Amino acid sequence: MKVAVVGANGKIGTHVVEQLQQAKTHPVVAMVRKQAQVDGWKDQGVDARLLDLEGPVSAIEKAFEDIDAVIFTAGSGGATGDDKTLMVDLDGAVKTMEAAHAVAADRFILVSALQAHNRENWNEDLLPYYVAKHYADKELMRSELDWTIVRPGGLTDEPGEEKIELAENLGRGTIAREDVARILIRCLDADNTIGKHFDALTGEHGVEAAVKRI
Amino acid sequence: MKVAVVGANGKIGTHVVEQLQQAKTHPVVAMVRKQAQVDGWKDQGVDARLLDLEGPVSAIEKAFEDIDAVIFTAGSGGATGDDKTLMVDLDGAVKTMEAAHAVAADRFILVSALQAHNRENWNEDLLPYYVAKHYADKELMRSELDWTIVRPGGLTDEPGEEKIELAENLGRGTIAREDVARILIRCLDADNTIGKHFDALTGEHGVEAAVKRI
Repeated sequence: MKVAVVGANGKIGTHVVEQLQQAKTHPVVAMVRKQAQVDGWKDQGVDARLLDLEGPVSAIEKAFEDIDAVIFTAGSGGATGDDKTLMVDLDGAVKTMEAAHAVAADRFILVSALQAHNRENWNEDLLPYYVAKHYADKELMRSELDWTIVRPGGLTDEPGEEKIELAENLGRGTIAREDVARILIRCLDADNTIGKHFDALTGEHGVEAAVKRI
Repeated sequence: MKVAVVGANGKIGTHVVEQLQQAKTHPVVAMVRKQAQVDGWKDQGVDARLLDLEGPVSAIEKAFEDIDAVIFTAGSGGATGDDKTLMVDLDGAVKTMEAAHAVAADRFILVSALQAHNRENWNEDLLPYYVAKHYADKELMRSELDWTIVRPGGLTDEPGEEKIELAENLGRGTIAREDVARILIRCLDADNTIGKHFDALTGEHGVEAAVKRI
């Protein structure tokens, strides 16, 4: 399965590409916004391509030509305005789903946010972000893709301890981006996660066991 | 059919309430955000209630208790940030749909924007607004409500001349808010518009005839 990592220069995306590259289980393509980022990955021996989430679906399809699976980790981030939240986190994600479906890259793993499916539990400080995630998730759930939605809690840059908790509904908590990347990659080889959505936090279970039980 | 007009103090909403009040075909309730606006409508003999599109669905349900039909004209407008575009134009609209469904106010007429269903035709100057409209429209189309989506072109404050053009796809153009209000009200009594979405511009046909032909 050739895996496209969308948002490969983001903090989670970088972990995903590096871990996939190291594991050698699946060939990986880093999808990034700028040519300098393509060059940077290639210097590290990683296949990389340009992908503009604000561009047309047809261009995303072209970038996905020989791709079998997509891990979508892109996010506009806190430094840009909510116009980008709408354009990237919502419409960019859905355009990526449409392109993946068009080229039969049917396996689609999406990074969402803890409790994005329950409006009453949205983080008050991140409401616009939660709206974007909520509707992107809904679109994916209704798609014909083989989807999985992973909803991590508060993200940290600590080294991941490979101990996690996964469930459809969890209370507030945190998780290392490095461990989120491990979960996403583990889902690639865990067909039991197809059609599932779940929260993810630091916890007491190994990644493989936790993903298997979902 | 008791009709709730959501966004009754907006420019289109005001026309809808005033035209309904004058026509006396259906009792109307003006749904507004502030108590002063409730008082303002009541001074004009119009039933009015508080409705907070950023509040919980349960509160919207309560405001809709005896309502049979909803005309959703609310919009966060250009003066606020895109956080409000996400919170009001997208999530506020969808919360209103959920509340309407919960209380069996099954007839739901939504104001969208010209070509919101075709990403390639979105107005470049209004992209975040178009994203919000696009996904709110999609949610309504998939709901179990008796929905109609009206997508007007560039809105003007000119007096409406009651000559319009309606079709699933129209080129760019304008239409008076007063005429948009006439179309919305006409749809209430035109069951042929249930499950239909269409663009609306100034044109050559009378409102009743144009709506009948959709």
